[in-house]
Amino acid sequence: MLRNDNFLRALSKQPVTRIPLWLMRQAGRYLPEYCETRKRAGGFMTLCQSADLACEVTLQPLARYDLDAAILFSDILTVPDAMGLGLYFETGEGPRFQRPLREEQAINELFAPDPYDSLAYVLDATRVIRKALDNSVPLIGFSGSPYTLACYMVEGGSSKDFRHIKTMLYTRPDLLHRILTVTSQAVTAYLNAQIENGAQAVMLFDTWGGSLSNAAYQEFSLAYMRQIIAGLRRERDGEKIPVIVFTKGGGLWLESIAESGCDAVGLDWTVSLGDARRRVGGKVALQGNLDPNVLFAPPQTIALEAEKVLASYQTAGDDMTGLVFNLGHGISQFTPPEHVHALIEAVHGYPR
Amino acid sequence: MLRNDNFLRALSKQPVTRIPLWLMRQAGRYLPEYCETRKRAGGFMTLCQSADLACEVTLQPLARYDLDAAILFSDILTVPDAMGLGLYFETGEGPRFQRPLREEQAINELFAPDPYDSLAYVLDATRVIRKALDNSVPLIGFSGSPYTLACYMVEGGSSKDFRHIKTMLYTRPDLLHRILTVTSQAVTAYLNAQIENGAQAVMLFDTWGGSLSNAAYQEFSLAYMRQIIAGLRRERDGEKIPVIVFTKGGGLWLESIAESGCDAVGLDWTVSLGDARRRVGGKVALQGNLDPNVLFAPPQTIALEAEKVLASYQTAGDDMTGLVFNLGHGISQFTPPEHVHALIEAVHGYPR
Repeated sequence: MLRNDNFLRALSKQPVTRIPLWLMRQAGRYLPEYCETRKRAGGFMTLCQSADLACEVTLQPLARYDLDAAILFSDILTVPDAMGLGLYFETGEGPRFQRPLREEQAINELFAPDPYDSLAYVLDATRVIRKALDNSVPLIGFSGSPYTLACYMVEGGSSKDFRHIKTMLYTRPDLLHRILTVTSQAVTAYLNAQIENGAQAVMLFDTWGGSLSNAAYQEFSLAYMRQIIAGLRRERDGEKIPVIVFTKGGGLWLESIAESGCDAVGLDWTVSLGDARRRVGGKVALQGNLDPNVLFAPPQTIALEAEKVLASYQTAGDDMTGLVFNLGHGISQFTPPEHVHALIEAVHGYPR
Repeated sequence: MLRNDNFLRALSKQPVTRIPLWLMRQAGRYLPEYCETRKRAGGFMTLCQSADLACEVTLQPLARYDLDAAILFSDILTVPDAMGLGLYFETGEGPRFQRPLREEQAINELFAPDPYDSLAYVLDATRVIRKALDNSVPLIGFSGSPYTLACYMVEGGSSKDFRHIKTMLYTRPDLLHRILTVTSQAVTAYLNAQIENGAQAVMLFDTWGGSLSNAAYQEFSLAYMRQIIAGLRRERDGEKIPVIVFTKGGGLWLESIAESGCDAVGLDWTVSLGDARRRVGGKVALQGNLDPNVLFAPPQTIALEAEKVLASYQTAGDDMTGLVFNLGHGISQFTPPEHVHALIEAVHGYPR
């Protein structure tokens, strides 16, 4: 039995003893202890590939802060790496693939890897972390969305304009659909394996869906996330496994995301949380959505801005159920770690 | 008398003989003739600073394509440059400022330049271009929005996370308000001078307003654009001067942008044009909003995608009045110039 199940209760819109909170990228470079472990490991992928190191960094923010959930330490690009694209990191350049997917033949040869084979290291980490958490707070598993993964796979890395994948989308949509179909199968199996190995909720990170037109988003991003959600194991050991979908820049499409079959929708900071709550009308829980840059401000301002977000949510309903507090994007590596306390106190102490 | 006033008529929601179209960044690097002139000039800023060269490149896309408007060739950063920040271009790095605005003293010393003094070269270009157009199509003047200019001024160049300006926004909002107040005065005087010298419509480019939270957008971007619009000369020689506001990523805030006093709202491609038309309910005209990446597709696909955008607009009204067709962002430098013809034919020929 979980000692703090507020996160799972909020996702099911059940009463909570306090508003649950976690932070996207909470185990990350803003924490000196993370930087030390990473240095010791010799690189980011070594952290992901060692169950013990992944567990160590997953627990670091929980040791420091009173958080309501842990998230598996891993990277969204483990899946395309397992598909044979050759992930590597160029210093200061972000992730890259040795073999970007552009040729029809390579696309036809694409396969969905067995997560128990090439992604076993993630499942090992999941088990070790779940055990180490010892039922203190729930463990979140995650994957990139098929479209977001396809962006990296086709572009070969980060991109400003997504020229290659969009050229494919408009010129050879059949090829992109093939990539997305295989990737969806891969992600479904991957998330089910995370659930099988101890993840108590899962989240789809659709970091780049917001770069699409409304129509293209529906066809090339949301449709595949819907397919994944339909294929997920939603219960384990009698416990429900909730699913969160987060499309950065997807505020315009909130209603259709809420109808994807997910339990909760993650929101970036451009959306008013009150408007969002009115728009989904209790259909799903919401997760968000403070601008991570607020954490550069002094503690009183952080508390004030967090309370504004919470008050906005409150204007649109009778109580505070159905809300998981989070940032609207990953915490910045430049965040002063001591500033995070002010945020957590404001959220857990709400209303003052 | 303009021989083709469809652009101005659409902005006033009057009947048109065809749906008017122009392209953001239509005079740009995708055109070989532009690259040649730029090479001859020796650099981008030389193009902006020579009235004859600015005129030459402004007219290049009009010689090649049947466009319904010309836009002054210039850069949004001319204003902060005239404020003494020292604009320069690092190859492959985009624009930079020698003296980013971070210190209170420098911010207090900030002044709104007299456009007839330090920006006279833009006004010269405006007059020369207007004369060269010889009443064929209208000339659009433009400026960056105060918040977008402040992003460059405080960050010192482009930014991924806008860490410096957001730290200021949440830590010392008084300093940012001071920058925005002075910049708004500068932009108002600058646009009025462009109108005085021949611009027949003006557009505010709010490229970075979409990086703000809903509340911060209202306070730090839209409020200042509203102030500028209220200070603009809206008529010259008996002709109305329409104002277009374009906030990239601002689809969520469409209703409030439409109430800023502008005549038209520019839209990026994430917004469904039909939804947008329903939401503004005839209050303003709309300009947009094809994904520029569509222009990488073959001509038939370009025509089809343009027709989808047009059909979306049509579902939400009785006719096609109040629409200026454009891309949802500047045309990519990698666009094959011959592809633009398919777009123009589809728009001017609509409905088939």
